[in-house]
Amino acid sequence: MDLTSLIWLAPVAGVLSIVAAGIIAKDVLKKDAGDDKMKEIAAAVQEGAMAYLNKQYSVIAIVGVVLAILIGIFIGWQTTLCFIVGAIFSGVAGYTGMNVSVRANVRTAAAAKKSLKDALNVAFRGGAVTGLAVVGLSLLGVSGMYLIFGGNVQFVVGFGFGASLISLFARVGGGIFTKAADVGADIVGKVESNLNEDDPRNPATIADNVGDNVGDCAGMGADLFETYAVTLLAAMMIGVTIGGGRFVALPLVLGSVAILASIAAIFCVRLGSNNKIMQALYKGVGAASIISLVLFFFVILFGMGDLKYFWVSLVGIAITVLMVIFTEYYTSTKYRPVKEIAKASETGAGTNVISGLSFGFESTILPVIIIIAGILISYSIGGGFATPSQGLYAIAIAAVAMLSTTGMIVALDSYGPITDNAGGIAEMSEQPKEVRVITDELDAIGNTTKAVTKGYAIGSAALGALALFAEFHDKVINTVPPVAVKTITSAAGKDAYNHANALAQFSIDNPLVLVGLLIGAVLPFAFTSVTMRAVSKAASAVIEEVRRQIRELGILEGKNKPEYGKCVSIVTGAALKEMIVPGLMAVVVPVLVGLFFGSLALAGTLIGIIVVGLMLAMTLNNAGGAWDNAKKLIEEGNYGGKGSEAHKAAVVGDTVGDPTKDTSGPGLNALIKVVNMVSILTITLYSTGGIFFH
Amino acid sequence: MDLTSLIWLAPVAGVLSIVAAGIIAKDVLKKDAGDDKMKEIAAAVQEGAMAYLNKQYSVIAIVGVVLAILIGIFIGWQTTLCFIVGAIFSGVAGYTGMNVSVRANVRTAAAAKKSLKDALNVAFRGGAVTGLAVVGLSLLGVSGMYLIFGGNVQFVVGFGFGASLISLFARVGGGIFTKAADVGADIVGKVESNLNEDDPRNPATIADNVGDNVGDCAGMGADLFETYAVTLLAAMMIGVTIGGGRFVALPLVLGSVAILASIAAIFCVRLGSNNKIMQALYKGVGAASIISLVLFFFVILFGMGDLKYFWVSLVGIAITVLMVIFTEYYTSTKYRPVKEIAKASETGAGTNVISGLSFGFESTILPVIIIIAGILISYSIGGGFATPSQGLYAIAIAAVAMLSTTGMIVALDSYGPITDNAGGIAEMSEQPKEVRVITDELDAIGNTTKAVTKGYAIGSAALGALALFAEFHDKVINTVPPVAVKTITSAAGKDAYNHANALAQFSIDNPLVLVGLLIGAVLPFAFTSVTMRAVSKAASAVIEEVRRQIRELGILEGKNKPEYGKCVSIVTGAALKEMIVPGLMAVVVPVLVGLFFGSLALAGTLIGIIVVGLMLAMTLNNAGGAWDNAKKLIEEGNYGGKGSEAHKAAVVGDTVGDPTKDTSGPGLNALIKVVNMVSILTITLYSTGGIFFH
Repeated sequence: MDLTSLIWLAPVAGVLSIVAAGIIAKDVLKKDAGDDKMKEIAAAVQEGAMAYLNKQYSVIAIVGVVLAILIGIFIGWQTTLCFIVGAIFSGVAGYTGMNVSVRANVRTAAAAKKSLKDALNVAFRGGAVTGLAVVGLSLLGVSGMYLIFGGNVQFVVGFGFGASLISLFARVGGGIFTKAADVGADIVGKVESNLNEDDPRNPATIADNVGDNVGDCAGMGADLFETYAVTLLAAMMIGVTIGGGRFVALPLVLGSVAILASIAAIFCVRLGSNNKIMQALYKGVGAASIISLVLFFFVILFGMGDLKYFWVSLVGIAITVLMVIFTEYYTSTKYRPVKEIAKASETGAGTNVISGLSFGFESTILPVIIIIAGILISYSIGGGFATPSQGLYAIAIAAVAMLSTTGMIVALDSYGPITDNAGGIAEMSEQPKEVRVITDELDAIGNTTKAVTKGYAIGSAALGALALFAEFHDKVINTVPPVAVKTITSAAGKDAYNHANALAQFSIDNPLVLVGLLIGAVLPFAFTSVTMRAVSKAASAVIEEVRRQIRELGILEGKNKPEYGKCVSIVTGAALKEMIVPGLMAVVVPVLVGLFFGSLALAGTLIGIIVVGLMLAMTLNNAGGAWDNAKKLIEEGNYGGKGSEAHKAAVVGDTVGDPTKDTSGPGLNALIKVVNMVSILTITLYSTGGIFFH
Repeated sequence: MDLTSLIWLAPVAGVLSIVAAGIIAKDVLKKDAGDDKMKEIAAAVQEGAMAYLNKQYSVIAIVGVVLAILIGIFIGWQTTLCFIVGAIFSGVAGYTGMNVSVRANVRTAAAAKKSLKDALNVAFRGGAVTGLAVVGLSLLGVSGMYLIFGGNVQFVVGFGFGASLISLFARVGGGIFTKAADVGADIVGKVESNLNEDDPRNPATIADNVGDNVGDCAGMGADLFETYAVTLLAAMMIGVTIGGGRFVALPLVLGSVAILASIAAIFCVRLGSNNKIMQALYKGVGAASIISLVLFFFVILFGMGDLKYFWVSLVGIAITVLMVIFTEYYTSTKYRPVKEIAKASETGAGTNVISGLSFGFESTILPVIIIIAGILISYSIGGGFATPSQGLYAIAIAAVAMLSTTGMIVALDSYGPITDNAGGIAEMSEQPKEVRVITDELDAIGNTTKAVTKGYAIGSAALGALALFAEFHDKVINTVPPVAVKTITSAAGKDAYNHANALAQFSIDNPLVLVGLLIGAVLPFAFTSVTMRAVSKAASAVIEEVRRQIRELGILEGKNKPEYGKCVSIVTGAALKEMIVPGLMAVVVPVLVGLFFGSLALAGTLIGIIVVGLMLAMTLNNAGGAWDNAKKLIEEGNYGGKGSEAHKAAVVGDTVGDPTKDTSGPGLNALIKVVNMVSILTITLYSTGGIFFH
C-alpha cells in the first residue's frame, strides 16, 4: 500500500469531522432550551461571551496583520497566506465551539429537569462539537495547505504560527478573563457579602459564567488546535529529512484514522447503570485510543511494512494514559495529595498553601520520568542511536499518536464550562433543588476533566515542541560556516569534519548556548509573574465595580437588578489590555535573542523554555487543581466542613490556585509553542553568533 | 614577578585570617555577658545549639565515613584524605562560628544597655569571627592540600566534596531546624495563645533562637565555605588546562590578598553620626571590595603582565554589587515589591500570596540578565571566542573575584542570628524598653542582610558551578571513543575530527543530554517539595509538644516553667531525620544518572540543575524575604497596622515564605554544588552512554 496516495484521506477526514460536529450541534440545539427565566440568563452569558470573543479577535487581528506583513516581507508571501489561514481556522474552531457551548449550557440545565443521563448527554455532546471542530479544522488546514503548496512543508509552518498566535492570545486573554471574573465574584460576593456561588444578586456572576467559556472552551480549544497542527508539522518535516514520501504521509494518515476513531468513540460515552459520570467519559477516551490503535496497526503494517512505528504509537498512547493517571492522582479528592492539603488547612492558610505548593512541585516528578522514558524508548525503537534523525522521527510519531485522542480530550474539557454554566443557570433561575443536585454532580466532574486536560496539553505540547526542535536544529546546522582544516584534504573528509563541527557548536557549554538556556529558563518565570499580576489587576477592576453596584444600586436588598453587562465589559477591557505584554513577550523575545546572540543562543532558549516551562506549568496546574479540590473536599463535610476555619484556609489556597491553574499554567503551553514557532519561522534571518558575536 | 613563587601566600593568609578571627573572638568574649537572667537564657541557647550541632555532625559523620570508603575504593585514597580534611575544616569553621555567635548574642544584648554603637560593634565582630574562620580555613585547606600533594589539583577535588557534604547537610538540617522551630513557636505561641515573639512562656522560644544560629550562622557558613573552595578549585583546574603555572597560582594569590582586604575592612565598619546601621555594614563590604580590587590590580599587572584578568575581576565585583542591589530591591520595605505585597494583604491572604509569588518569579529576571552579561563579557575579555578554555578561565576568575567579599558577607549573615538572639534574650530577661528598641533596630537590619547574603550565595554558587562544569566537560570529552572516518587519512586530521565529534556529543538535542537536562530540571522541584514538606512535618512535632506543655503544665498561667530543652530535642530529632532524604538525593541521583544513562546525560543534568536551581532558588528566597518584610511593613503601622485583617493576611504570606526562604531556597545552593562535586569526582566511572545506551 502506498501511503502517499492516501494523503487525500486527511482533508476528507477533516471535513468529515466538521460535518459530524455540525450534525451533533444541530442535535444539541434542538433540545429544550428551558423556561424564559433560564433563556434570559443564558442569553446574557451568550451575549457576553460573544462580545468578548469579537473584541479579542479584533485585537489579535491587529497584531496578526502586522505579523502577516512582516512575515511576507522577511520570509515570503506563501507563508503569510498559510499564517492567515491558520489563524482563521483556529479562530473559526474557537468561535463555533463557543457558540455551541453557550447554548448547550442552558439545554443541559433544562435536561437536568428530566434525568442525569439526559443532562450528561447534552453536556458531553455540546463539548464534542468543539472537540471535532478543533481536530477537523486543524487536520484539514495542515493537509489542505500541504496539498495546495504541492507538498512544500516549509510554507505550512505559517499555518502553525497562525494557530500559535491565536492560541497564545486566546489562552492568556481568556485565562485572565475567567480568573479575574471568578476572583472578583468570589471576593466581593462570597467573602464580603456572604452570597452563594451564582447568586443572581452578584453583578459579576454572568461575567464569571462567561469566563468559563472563554477560558476553557475557546482557550483550551485554540491551545490543542495548535499543538495538533504543530506536532503534525514537526513529524512531516522530519519525515522530509529522512526520506520524504510515506514518511511525510504517515502522520497525516494516522491523524485521519484517529479522527474516524474519535467520531465513533463519541457514541461510546454512555452513562452506565452505576451512574458514574467520570467512567462514562473515560469510556470515550478509551474507545478513541483503542480504535485508533487498531487502525494504526493496519496503516503502519501495510503502509510502512514494518511495525516499529506501531510500537512507537503505543508509547505515545501510554504517555497519554499515564499523564492522565498522574494528574488525577495529584488533583482528585480521592488520593493522598488533596487529602493532605485539606488536612493542612486545619492549621491555617499558611500550612494549606505550603502543602499545596509542595505537592505542586512534587507533581513534576512522575510525568518527567514518563516523558524521559517515552523519549528514550521511541528514539531507541526508531533506531536513533544508529541514525539520529530516524530516532527523532519516532519521537514525533509518538507525539502524533498521543494526539489521536485530542478530539475526545477537547470534548471533555469543553464539557467543564457547559456543566459549570448549567449549574449557574439552574441557581440563578431558581430551579428546584433536585435539578441543582444533578448539575452539581456533572460540574464536580468538570473540575477533574479540566485538570486532566491540562496535564495532557502540557505533556503533548512538550513532546511536540521537542519534535519541532529537531527541525530547528537541522536548519541551524546548515548555517554554521565551514572551517578549513589543513590536515583534512579529501572533500568527503571535509564534509564529515564540518558536520561534526557544526553539531559541536550546540554543545551545552558553548557560552552562547548557555546564555540562550538561561534566557529560555527565565522566560517562563517572567511570563508567570506577568500573567499572575495581570489577573490581580483585572480582578481589582471587577472588585471595585461590584462594590460600587452594591453601594449605589442597593442590589443586595433587591432594590435594583445588577448591571451584569457592565461587569462583563470591564473584565473584557481589562483582560484584553493585560494580555498584550505577555503575548508580545512570546513573539519578541526569540527574535531579539536571534538577532543579538544568534541562532545557537536561540537553540538554547528553545530547550530552556521547553524544559523549564514544562516543570513550571505542571507545578502551577496541579497545585491549583489540588487546592481547588481540597476546598471541595472540606465543603463535602470533611475536616470541619463548610464555614470552619479549615474551610477559610482552603479558600485562600483556592484563590492562590485560580490564576496559577487557569491563567499562568496553561498560558505556558502557548508560550512554549509560540516561541518555538517564531524561532523556526525566522531562523533563516539570524547568523550563528548574532550581532554581538558574529 | 613569578606568581607561582607566591603560592605560599595562600596558606599564610589563611592562617592569618584564623588568627585574626581568634583575636576578635577573644575581644568579643571579654565583653560584659549581662546579668544572671540573661546568662541563664543564653546558656540554654548555647546548650541547645551545641547539642544540635554535635548530633548533626554525628549523623553526617556516618554518611561521611561511608562515602570516604567508597571514594577510597573507587577513586583513590589521596582523594579520600582530602575529602576528610575538607569535611573537618568546614565543620570546624561552623563549630567555631557558632560557638562565638551563641556567646556574642547575650553580649550584644548587654551592650545594648549602653548604646547602639556598642551593641552593633559586638554583634558585627561576633559575625566577623565566622566570616574570617570560613574564608581562612577554606583557603588554608585548598592551598595546603594543593601544596601537600605536590600541585595535583585532582586530589584536592576531594576537599571540595568534603566541604559540599557538610554544606548540604548543614544547610538542609539547619534550614529545617530553624523553620520548624520558628513556625511551631509562631503558630501555637503567637496565633493560638496571643503571646509576643520571644515570650518566655512559649516553650519553643529557645528552640527558635537556637534555630537562627544553626540555620544562618552554621548553615550559611558551610555553604559559602564550600562555594569558596569549589570556585578556587574550578579556577585552578581550568588554569592547569590552559597552561598551568601562574594560571593555577592566580586564583590562590587573589584569594590571599582578598583575605587581607577583608581583615582590614572589618575595622571600617563604624556607625556614622547618622546612626544608619545598614550604611555602616555596607561600608565594610565596600571597603573589602575596593581594597581587594587595588591589590588585584597590582597582582595581575605584575603577575600576569596583562590587565585583562583585572577587567574580569571588575566584572565579578560588579556582579556582586548588582546582585546585592537587586535582592534589596525585591526584599526591602523601601521599594515597590514589598509595598505592593503589603497593599495586596488588604484584600486577604490569597492576594498577598499571589502578589508575593508573582514578585518572586519576577525577581529572577534582573539577576539572570546580570549573570548572562557577566558570562559573556568575561568570556569575551578572556578571549574565549578564539580559544574557549581561555574564556572559561576568565569566567572562573570573575567568580573568584566575586568571592573576594565572602568573609564580609558571612560576617553580615552571622550578624543576623546574633542580633535576633540578642532581641530574644532582652525580651525573655525582661530588660527595659530602651534596650529592646536598640536590639530591634539591629535585628530589623538582620532581615535585609540575610536576604542579601542569599542573593550573593546563589549567584556565586551558579557562577562557580558553571566554571566547574568546564572541567567536567573536558573530562567527558576525553572519554568519547574515537571514530574512524575513512575519508580522513592524516593523523592530525583524525584528531581534529575526533575532537569536533566528541564536542558534538554534547549537542542539546542528543536525547541523552536532553534526558539529563530534564532530570537536572526536575531535581530542584523534587528537592523543594521534599524540604518544604520536611519543615511542615518537623513543625507539626513542635506544635504538638508546645500544645501539650500548655495543656499539661499550665505554663501560660505561670504554674510551671516551660520545658525548653524538650522542644529543642524534638526539633533536633525531627530535623536530622528529615534531612536524610533530600541529602541523599543530591548524592545518589548523579551517580544513578551516570551509571544508567552515562556521562553525556550527566552533563545535561549538571546544566539543568544549575539553570533551574538558580531560578527556583531566587524565586523562593526573594518571595520569602518580601513576604517577611511586607508583614514588618504592616507592623510598622501601614495598611492597617498590627492586628488588622491585612496583618493577618501578611502573617499567612510570612508563614509560606519561612520554609521557602530559609530551607528550600538556600538548600538549592547546596544541592547544585553537591551534584556538581559528586559528578566531577565520579566521572571517570561512567561510560558515555551508561548501562542502557553503551
